[in-house]
Amino acid sequence: MGAASRSPVCSAEPELPMSKTRLEAFSDGVLAIIITILVLELKVPHGEDLAMLKPLLPVFLGYVLSFVYVGIYWNNHHHMLHACKRISGAALWANLHLLFWLSLLPFVTGWMGENHFAQLPTALYGVVLLMAAIGYWVLARTLIAAEGPDSVLGRAIGSDRKGNLSVLIYAAAIPLAFFNPWLAQACYVIVALMWLIPDRRIEKALAAREG
Amino acid sequence: MGAASRSPVCSAEPELPMSKTRLEAFSDGVLAIIITILVLELKVPHGEDLAMLKPLLPVFLGYVLSFVYVGIYWNNHHHMLHACKRISGAALWANLHLLFWLSLLPFVTGWMGENHFAQLPTALYGVVLLMAAIGYWVLARTLIAAEGPDSVLGRAIGSDRKGNLSVLIYAAAIPLAFFNPWLAQACYVIVALMWLIPDRRIEKALAAREG
Amino acid sequence: MGAASRSPVCSAEPELPMSKTRLEAFSDGVLAIIITILVLELKVPHGEDLAMLKPLLPVFLGYVLSFVYVGIYWNNHHHMLHACKRISGAALWANLHLLFWLSLLPFVTGWMGENHFAQLPTALYGVVLLMAAIGYWVLARTLIAAEGPDSVLGRAIGSDRKGNLSVLIYAAAIPLAFFNPWLAQACYVIVALMWLIPDRRIEKALAAREG
Amino acid sequence: MGAASRSPVCSAEPELPMSKTRLEAFSDGVLAIIITILVLELKVPHGEDLAMLKPLLPVFLGYVLSFVYVGIYWNNHHHMLHACKRISGAALWANLHLLFWLSLLPFVTGWMGENHFAQLPTALYGVVLLMAAIGYWVLARTLIAAEGPDSVLGRAIGSDRKGNLSVLIYAAAIPLAFFNPWLAQACYVIVALMWLIPDRRIEKALAAREG
Repeated sequence: MGAASRSPVCSAEPELPMSKTRLEAFSDGVLAIIITILVLELKVPHGEDLAMLKPLLPVFLGYVLSFVYVGIYWNNHHHMLHACKRISGAALWANLHLLFWLSLLPFVTGWMGENHFAQLPTALYGVVLLMAAIGYWVLARTLIAAEGPDSVLGRAIGSDRKGNLSVLIYAAAIPLAFFNPWLAQACYVIVALMWLIPDRRIEKALAAREG
Repeated sequence: MGAASRSPVCSAEPELPMSKTRLEAFSDGVLAIIITILVLELKVPHGEDLAMLKPLLPVFLGYVLSFVYVGIYWNNHHHMLHACKRISGAALWANLHLLFWLSLLPFVTGWMGENHFAQLPTALYGVVLLMAAIGYWVLARTLIAAEGPDSVLGRAIGSDRKGNLSVLIYAAAIPLAFFNPWLAQACYVIVALMWLIPDRRIEKALAAREG
Repeated sequence: MGAASRSPVCSAEPELPMSKTRLEAFSDGVLAIIITILVLELKVPHGEDLAMLKPLLPVFLGYVLSFVYVGIYWNNHHHMLHACKRISGAALWANLHLLFWLSLLPFVTGWMGENHFAQLPTALYGVVLLMAAIGYWVLARTLIAAEGPDSVLGRAIGSDRKGNLSVLIYAAAIPLAFFNPWLAQACYVIVALMWLIPDRRIEKALAAREG
Repeated sequence: MGAASRSPVCSAEPELPMSKTRLEAFSDGVLAIIITILVLELKVPHGEDLAMLKPLLPVFLGYVLSFVYVGIYWNNHHHMLHACKRISGAALWANLHLLFWLSLLPFVTGWMGENHFAQLPTALYGVVLLMAAIGYWVLARTLIAAEGPDSVLGRAIGSDRKGNLSVLIYAAAIPLAFFNPWLAQACYVIVALMWLIPDRRIEKALAAREG
């Protein structure tokens, strides 16, 4: 897969190292559109009183959750690529793979919100989060493979306990959604908070390892 | 909150100062999409005569107002980041917080326009404007916290009388909308003009303080 | 209007000349979204045979025309800003004014196409083209005002006969649409071709003046 | 056509070589929006059970195929422009021509998916792929014309056997769709795989020619 993007054109690749600027620009574009398309699921109601807004509340809550998730991905994507020096052909495809799963967020958010966090839509939302987390993991490994394990990026990501824990929680939340969808929602919120709220211990451990 | 975006990946942050280029690119993308999605609320009517356009007039007027507001935000965002040297992890989230409220503009604009500037939609429009203004204020404070009060940005923003006055007018307009929605609309237009028309006195005062 | 975008933040402007990079990035974003939103008016038909596509033909033709127009604007915008060195606060607003009229293209294109190039929609399409042309003229003058009439840009645009002729043809096409909408359409196509097909004489005249 | 984009403004062109940065930025924007608009065809169903998702399966499969195609085009576009030094006025229009055909992908993908890969929609999907492939070929030739046949780009693209083969397969798939649409689909998948999976022989041949 390392040369997956090879085309006759790409044979110029070994001579001219690929610029990460355009990968960032394209990813920023896609993430900016995903985050804004999410709001299109908030359909303008046909009436002016407060009662018309009530059925929109679950859609709005789903919107907030997905907005925060795309924000977390943009943030981490930003940091990860910032620490990179080289972008391989495989990384371009690993990046597209991550964007593919994130692009499904508006659909599953809309479906989950319109059905008031019912079982199946909640489970499917978890599947998309799980696949995006795996996509992010694959992208990180692909980038490290090009940078080397002793690179800034390799040391920074290390064993990636937080990422692994996220995958575990998502995987647990999906079957949980069929018993109690609110427990699954709690899982999604916990993972989001886990990434929003700084974890001093992990930071210190990493700082120590690096210091 | 200063380290809110920390992830194992982000531990590379202290070594590699974050680039503001990508923050600007992402914000430009989101603002460009918001400003263009606004026009999607102008639904193509099913008929070719002038009478079909008449019900679109309030939607169009709302579109113009929101277009100007996004333009003002883009403009001020542009200037504010231009004066910045460092972007902290907290600033990334403060920026996303501002974009969140602005992303709700197409929804409230469409709702307000379709209901011909009725009370509740007009009030909700004011709530989104108020929250965006607060979001902008938080972003400004977060950026100044990293730059220092004696930085170009710190001195330029200073006491930010115009921003505080805007928040005050929005806060007054929201309850006003339930008495007379047109008075609330007048408030929104006045604040927009306040930012469009240059205020020589404030400029001079600032120039003097800096000179 | 020269200081229209002044805000307390903007007082940093005189010290830090505004970067045109972000103006270009924002305009590229808006134009890219406008050109892509245009295609959303091509609604997927509910049926699989050729007869379902027939009513889409006028919408498709309108799409092609508007796509070419946005392409021409992007192209000329690109060249004009390329020749610029300074971007004033007024230019930011003149640019937003141009983008405002272009942002209405998807709406009028959809309305014109759905009504098979009827009189009023065809006239309104012309109004938007006329206002965009005026917006472009205002932007050019605003940029030249900052660059100086002897700048590369000032000499390159010169008397702008092509731009003036375009405005004239649009202004004629609008009333014409009520007599015969096809004549108005012919006007729109002629102006588009005028910008697509190179005019050797004008180029030579300009080259001579510059040489 | 070489001077197709000439306008009075463009007479500044010979002095100031056009920047490819903005061409890339605009193309990235359009491709990012196309890839994200594709997902809008996945309409949120009105019901929460698995049966509601079943009719979406063909739309989803079409989405995956088109996502991969836009990814391939972005990838190759990225490489091709990376190897370029100069962008002529004709290349700007050749690029817009390619983007035009790609912008029709969401429409034909939606139509094909909603009609469960019926004959006519499948054939039309092939027409758009064929025209996009021709558009890419025209862009490549236009860029090489400015760079010279001995440039890095000229040697890298060479006889472009893969591109020619793709055009041939698309051209065969279009009539095939009326006999058996699944054979046409197989053709589209094969071409996509052809660009995804690296072709060692072609690479070696090219490497040898260059070495």
